[in-house]
Amino acid sequence: MKRRIALISTGGTIEKTYDELRGVLSNQVSVLDIMLASLELRGVEVHRVPLMNKDSLEMSPEDHTLIAETAGRLAESHAGVVVVHGTDRLAVSGERVVELIAAPAAPIVFTGAMRPWELRSSDALQNLTEALLAVQLVGPGVYVAMHNQVLQFPGVIKDPEHRTFVKAR
Amino acid sequence: MKRRIALISTGGTIEKTYDELRGVLSNQVSVLDIMLASLELRGVEVHRVPLMNKDSLEMSPEDHTLIAETAGRLAESHAGVVVVHGTDRLAVSGERVVELIAAPAAPIVFTGAMRPWELRSSDALQNLTEALLAVQLVGPGVYVAMHNQVLQFPGVIKDPEHRTFVKAR
Amino acid sequence: MKRRIALISTGGTIEKTYDELRGVLSNQVSVLDIMLASLELRGVEVHRVPLMNKDSLEMSPEDHTLIAETAGRLAESHAGVVVVHGTDRLAVSGERVVELIAAPAAPIVFTGAMRPWELRSSDALQNLTEALLAVQLVGPGVYVAMHNQVLQFPGVIKDPEHRTFVKAR
Amino acid sequence: MKRRIALISTGGTIEKTYDELRGVLSNQVSVLDIMLASLELRGVEVHRVPLMNKDSLEMSPEDHTLIAETAGRLAESHAGVVVVHGTDRLAVSGERVVELIAAPAAPIVFTGAMRPWELRSSDALQNLTEALLAVQLVGPGVYVAMHNQVLQFPGVIKDPEHRTFVKAR
Repeated sequence: MKRRIALISTGGTIEKTYDELRGVLSNQVSVLDIMLASLELRGVEVHRVPLMNKDSLEMSPEDHTLIAETAGRLAESHAGVVVVHGTDRLAVSGERVVELIAAPAAPIVFTGAMRPWELRSSDALQNLTEALLAVQLVGPGVYVAMHNQVLQFPGVIKDPEHRTFVKAR
Repeated sequence: MKRRIALISTGGTIEKTYDELRGVLSNQVSVLDIMLASLELRGVEVHRVPLMNKDSLEMSPEDHTLIAETAGRLAESHAGVVVVHGTDRLAVSGERVVELIAAPAAPIVFTGAMRPWELRSSDALQNLTEALLAVQLVGPGVYVAMHNQVLQFPGVIKDPEHRTFVKAR
Repeated sequence: MKRRIALISTGGTIEKTYDELRGVLSNQVSVLDIMLASLELRGVEVHRVPLMNKDSLEMSPEDHTLIAETAGRLAESHAGVVVVHGTDRLAVSGERVVELIAAPAAPIVFTGAMRPWELRSSDALQNLTEALLAVQLVGPGVYVAMHNQVLQFPGVIKDPEHRTFVKAR
Repeated sequence: MKRRIALISTGGTIEKTYDELRGVLSNQVSVLDIMLASLELRGVEVHRVPLMNKDSLEMSPEDHTLIAETAGRLAESHAGVVVVHGTDRLAVSGERVVELIAAPAAPIVFTGAMRPWELRSSDALQNLTEALLAVQLVGPGVYVAMHNQVLQFPGVIKDPEHRTFVKAR
């Protein structure tokens, strides 16, 4: 009954955790499983694909291509793909999918967060919830789901001033 | 840019708060505004319509009709309607909309919770998040959005064993 | 190095959990271990003594005597005793210790909560934290530690209006 | 009825907040008032003294002297003093009080945190709770209250391996 979807994790702010010794937030362990365990998932069965755990500012062109190719390939064998990604370069990976995959076999939905899940007040769970719902409701294509909206690539950019994503004009 | 939607609150578990003197959870004040303030809402502009604040087990037939008529009327002047409702009788109100409104002018999405928002561990915020996203993605019709799935009326029932909603066979 | 203390649990609001099927808060499982795991305990080593799990309004005279005798006996073999108790009858158990044990061998500190730990906003963790510190700092005797104060029995009563404990005049 | 105490804030990990634009935790605004509002304070009336907001690694010798002198002076007009301080140099300020103030007029209790309050899982509230109780229970002198123990200066050092404070041998 449940749709089987792939959940690719790549790191980013959403997954940053606190390092007590150094006193900084960094990408060390994945907190996605804790987030998933706190949600009631009746619509999807999640296939976890931990691909990398990087601040997206540190992603190389090869990283973006690897993410895009992995998403495209998994879309062929799943009802949908969710990609958890740092917001700074999320749009680079999104556009890369559009360039490399002419017609994805299923929806590919990116999401991320402006504030790490580890913070008391964070947008991480909202955004993950939205991506896991949107992937069931939209048609094949490439999207970002975050902050109560779903935008379709190509033409999505991060709006640093408003700390969210918008469609480029 | 944002879609203007109506958010009708009727009470239910999702809005129950703790009464220290009596030591019970009851529907006294609405916590919906606190929940809304904790979400980043870029897709919708919310028009709050506090209709009633009842445990749905205490709703009369007139209550269900009032809810259905209010939702139908607001669907004519908004891009969508979200109805926060107790889960025990949510399906009664959902079916009533289908009976009374042949073709809603916009999506009408019900949601609720199995555990009050006031609890440390609650499905309330997940479900509200989902309803506020689904109302932007589905076509005109009557739905419940909860627990990572969107189901369309008629024919939705509460499954007490699994504590969620399912399609009747 | 750590002082070995006994932690007697008897139930009460602090330990109430939510029953989804019945929609009420009740004393079913102990949440004390979850609370303890969330604290950094460098001063005490805790010996858990689960004695009962009751709303204190339902305690019989025999229950109060059992609690008092157990606390008195454990005070002989530990550096201190903390008793988690429903606030409605906490003072009854506290006075019972004073009646039965002329000179406790170590401090016996009662605590409880006005709002269950399971609630997002609760005094449970504050009160448990205070009891686990007070038991190291006060002399032998019977006390309640709650809401940023430590009061010594006899002569402590619940002040329902202010929802806390005070010294009777 | 309540004891009037002074609460000096100097910054440190406990007060660090998240900067979305830069993606780092830093000392910008004080979160102490939010923490205080979440506690039930029946024993003390708090007089807030915001002295500085610094990572203690950046404190100069003059900063430590200013903190020590301010604490000593406030101890003359209050029933106790609590000092919120970064843990890296907390012991420097504590020893400075001992050097400068031969006999404090009231207890001076330092506290801090290994993990910022803004994190979902943090020792900040536990430590503040403990300091606000200890200041009522100990005699005049200089202490650190943290992680369920109260240690008296001189001779307290940070144990980086165990991420807490211990008495030097």
